[in-house]
Amino acid sequence: MPDPEKMVAAVHAYVAAFEKSDADAVAVLYAADGTVEDPIGADIQHGREAVRAFYAEAMKTGAKLRLEGPIRVAGPYAVFPFSVHLNYEGGPKRIDVIDTFRFSDANEVVEMRAFWGPTNMHRF
Amino acid sequence: MPDPEKMVAAVHAYVAAFEKSDADAVAVLYAADGTVEDPIGADIQHGREAVRAFYAEAMKTGAKLRLEGPIRVAGPYAVFPFSVHLNYEGGPKRIDVIDTFRFSDANEVVEMRAFWGPTNMHRF
Repeated sequence: MPDPEKMVAAVHAYVAAFEKSDADAVAVLYAADGTVEDPIGADIQHGREAVRAFYAEAMKTGAKLRLEGPIRVAGPYAVFPFSVHLNYEGGPKRIDVIDTFRFSDANEVVEMRAFWGPTNMHRF
Repeated sequence: MPDPEKMVAAVHAYVAAFEKSDADAVAVLYAADGTVEDPIGADIQHGREAVRAFYAEAMKTGAKLRLEGPIRVAGPYAVFPFSVHLNYEGGPKRIDVIDTFRFSDANEVVEMRAFWGPTNMHRF
């Protein structure tokens, strides 16, 4: 089983990486064969390089994350509610999201799924 | 795809059912072959009757739920952060939880997974 303290630290590192728009700092949290599905139903990004490129593109919107409650740690999962603040389609937006991170025994993210949809997007 | 409005209504009905300690009102939200994994890693309850019995037992603790943020609706999933307030082991407790509900096209819950662990339990 992964280490709960390292799982929580990875979530905080994830938020901090967005603060710096640092896609490399996100990619390093993932296993070499880690996957990203963001949002649910989108094409799944496979492997650390595809994951890095996905985040580099997302960060072009200036996206910043704010945790909106405690990180739930359940077996190999860290699951957390947050809001994304970004600019696209001509103005600032807020999206309410919950991510599930599943970790390997080496404390790397092997599967990320982002749960949000049209009802969770808000224009300011 | 299930109907986002009906998915959100099901989550509110779930919270309301706990308010009344009404296990039947929870079970009716599930598909006949629906499953519950609460918490992650626990034995999975299969089918509406097992699900009903599981909730009836949980409700003996007087558990009440409080939503702690917006319901995320993503494809067939409704995912939501909440706190559970209950009595066990001699006193009141709060547990921070995130549930994922996956719905069928008939707007019934086919899979519920509850994400919480020891770090999410708080004694008052």
